Amino acid sequence: MKNVLFATTVLASLATVASAETGVKIGGYGRFGLVHYSDRTAPLNDTTVHTRLRLNIDAKTETDSGVVFGARLRIQDQSRGTHGSTTGGGVNAPALLYTEYEGLRVEVGNTNTAFDTAALIYGSEMGLTDKSFGDSRTSFFAFESAPYSGVSTKDRMGVFASYKFEGFQVRASFVTPDQTGALPVEEESSIAVDYKTDQFTVSAAAVQNGAGRADNDAWFIGGAYTGMENLTVGLNYFDEGINAGGVSMGSTAVLYGNYKMGATTLKGYVANNDHVNNLTDTAFGIGADYDLGGAKLTGSIQRDYNEDTWADVGVRFNF
Amino acid sequence: MKNVLFATTVLASLATVASAETGVKIGGYGRFGLVHYSDRTAPLNDTTVHTRLRLNIDAKTETDSGVVFGARLRIQDQSRGTHGSTTGGGVNAPALLYTEYEGLRVEVGNTNTAFDTAALIYGSEMGLTDKSFGDSRTSFFAFESAPYSGVSTKDRMGVFASYKFEGFQVRASFVTPDQTGALPVEEESSIAVDYKTDQFTVSAAAVQNGAGRADNDAWFIGGAYTGMENLTVGLNYFDEGINAGGVSMGSTAVLYGNYKMGATTLKGYVANNDHVNNLTDTAFGIGADYDLGGAKLTGSIQRDYNEDTWADVGVRFNF
Amino acid sequence: MKNVLFATTVLASLATVASAETGVKIGGYGRFGLVHYSDRTAPLNDTTVHTRLRLNIDAKTETDSGVVFGARLRIQDQSRGTHGSTTGGGVNAPALLYTEYEGLRVEVGNTNTAFDTAALIYGSEMGLTDKSFGDSRTSFFAFESAPYSGVSTKDRMGVFASYKFEGFQVRASFVTPDQTGALPVEEESSIAVDYKTDQFTVSAAAVQNGAGRADNDAWFIGGAYTGMENLTVGLNYFDEGINAGGVSMGSTAVLYGNYKMGATTLKGYVANNDHVNNLTDTAFGIGADYDLGGAKLTGSIQRDYNEDTWADVGVRFNF
Repeated sequence: MKNVLFATTVLASLATVASAETGVKIGGYGRFGLVHYSDRTAPLNDTTVHTRLRLNIDAKTETDSGVVFGARLRIQDQSRGTHGSTTGGGVNAPALLYTEYEGLRVEVGNTNTAFDTAALIYGSEMGLTDKSFGDSRTSFFAFESAPYSGVSTKDRMGVFASYKFEGFQVRASFVTPDQTGALPVEEESSIAVDYKTDQFTVSAAAVQNGAGRADNDAWFIGGAYTGMENLTVGLNYFDEGINAGGVSMGSTAVLYGNYKMGATTLKGYVANNDHVNNLTDTAFGIGADYDLGGAKLTGSIQRDYNEDTWADVGVRFNF
Repeated sequence: MKNVLFATTVLASLATVASAETGVKIGGYGRFGLVHYSDRTAPLNDTTVHTRLRLNIDAKTETDSGVVFGARLRIQDQSRGTHGSTTGGGVNAPALLYTEYEGLRVEVGNTNTAFDTAALIYGSEMGLTDKSFGDSRTSFFAFESAPYSGVSTKDRMGVFASYKFEGFQVRASFVTPDQTGALPVEEESSIAVDYKTDQFTVSAAAVQNGAGRADNDAWFIGGAYTGMENLTVGLNYFDEGINAGGVSMGSTAVLYGNYKMGATTLKGYVANNDHVNNLTDTAFGIGADYDLGGAKLTGSIQRDYNEDTWADVGVRFNF
Repeated sequence: MKNVLFATTVLASLATVASAETGVKIGGYGRFGLVHYSDRTAPLNDTTVHTRLRLNIDAKTETDSGVVFGARLRIQDQSRGTHGSTTGGGVNAPALLYTEYEGLRVEVGNTNTAFDTAALIYGSEMGLTDKSFGDSRTSFFAFESAPYSGVSTKDRMGVFASYKFEGFQVRASFVTPDQTGALPVEEESSIAVDYKTDQFTVSAAAVQNGAGRADNDAWFIGGAYTGMENLTVGLNYFDEGINAGGVSMGSTAVLYGNYKMGATTLKGYVANNDHVNNLTDTAFGIGADYDLGGAKLTGSIQRDYNEDTWADVGVRFNF
């Protein structure tokens, strides 16, 4: 049907919005500040202003029997600190649709992936742009905040499922970069398992044909301990996949810790990666957040595997 | 004026939103499932995942004298089941602006059209994607869910009016694919009349230069009867227009019926079209909806005029 | 961090939305009508339908200590009255992020600029499209309602600050068309000061390298008097910058007045500009608004420096 005549907008009543959280909501965050990265060559600027505005439009309904159906469309705009971008304004991401019932969630479309959403996998990130050189160096799919491009053709399709029970959460995902079959691409599949207690969290994940690249297989295991009042320490290990040239990205290990003192949280990490092109195998970073109550000041100084320095400072606020 | 300094957002108070329904609301629907179509040639896949998220941003205000002014901007993302799409994320449709006073409604911009919004014209549709081979095979304009392209240049402009009185609704629309006059295009005009009683609906419509194609003229007449508790039967007839090559699309007749039993609605149709390229002149389909209360399971199996099979199954939910 | 796992949408409670105005709101306006401009050559149409829908998505939060952080993303669609547009649907503007504390406001990203937001600078505008030939003829940056293009590369970055105290408001802005340093562009800087009493407003502003064009420097001074019940008269003077060919745009002076009688406001202006290419140095316009309570009828007739006539009439409504 091409159109609906005078379609009336069905908006859940305000009372319903408040209680059952059905209807449409917009949430997200903004952040802005300065980013310095010493790897840029003249005349390019090492220091640029960073801004990002993320708007998640979340729609949701619930059937009489308690099954939830929902969808997300993200609009995002981010400053361009390196030249050559193709967009000069906010972009609409592809849609994610999902259903939830009790502990089970199934997503379709522009889905999350198991590897990307494994607990702890981004545990060492810090600063204005949530960055860490201790993150995995492997390419893999994730929920996309911008229109598909590159290997993710316009015909990409993902399916994702997660299930929670007691302290466990298990996830599996499958993404084809081209569901029409017109292109000779590989499908990515990934799985992840988390287990949490009051003090410990452990997580393991694996991905095959990461980002649709044949034989780009990787796995991850991580553990974190929270104790001694306000201290969290964690250790992540990645057996990395291969880059576009078919060369192994080696393995990455990162030890990180966060310590909270009143409104301030201090963060630090040391990472080791043995990729053949590294100038040094060790990267590290220190950072701090200061809670303003509804927003935070945040910053970090990090060194990468080429001995270049990354520094950022700014503000982030949620809404 | 290039800008408004610190423009304050005028939001109708919450009380007003609840009562007079002015302000801005987001509504729409999501749907996802599987679509199978046997007309695709290897290596293309016959079966793909279908997703669509439709968000209608509806803004509205009412003057002291009761005249309503409003606008709609649609953001939509849909999965791409055939290769070659040009968008890989949600797209913003062109805007529709309107005014309403008592039974009269006038639209301007990306308007509805009379032919597309005639009652019953899509009466035989079914399944996840609201599809029927008994729909008109003529090209004509409608409210666009994506940026204008093709014959609808960026300079397309439409005007639409409808008026309701007692059981009648009349509509007229005019769409120029290029209002600047730079291109040698044809304007489409269409009219429609509906009449409804408790048990009967009849509808007739005509379009001239459909979709801006010279001599692409078509007309439609349809009738439907609802009776015998939960049964609706209808008959539509189209005298079709011409295709891009100037060849007549023949005429189409479709007999359809819906039968509701509790939460289940069964649907069926048989259609006949005598276009010269048809392998067979008969198409048909059966489908079913199952109401979940806030969402529905829906599916159909249909055969087209080339004896290919279309099948779909999935979920649709409104919000 | 590539993604947030099942990010929960943080929506301020409805009570909070109503009182502290944090959270996300959508406001804006719609307008539609007819525009006639006699400068078009056959076969182009002098008269076209004008539509615009502006949606401002405004997100906002406030820290415990009363500092406000916020952001705006605009979605806009406008009819295309001249051929050759590159967009056929609504577009997302780049994001503006800001912080406010008492009288101080700082913006970053797609910011306002001091010159564009000086009081009175658009004081002579009228009609459906807020147009006046007494506006500055100099090119300068402003908040952009569409993705960056042209000299504003995708890497454009602006910073803006304003401060209010008693009757004063001072503003300063800085915009680089390419913050990455990859392109040999000029930065625009501008300042503005306003002073308002009950009856008088005076405003002065200056811009250097307007719109990133070297030596495109301009200044402005304006004054307005409101008295005699419902009458406002003002005088603006611009020492203009240079066009793309390096030729001075001369100077512009405009005398304007508005007179309000009940629901009707009459407007008029006479402008003088001495640019070398003018057919005449005098432009003028008369217009009227009629308040419908929630919307307005508005129209104008204006003559430009080539003795061409501009006329518009239509409706504008806010939401």
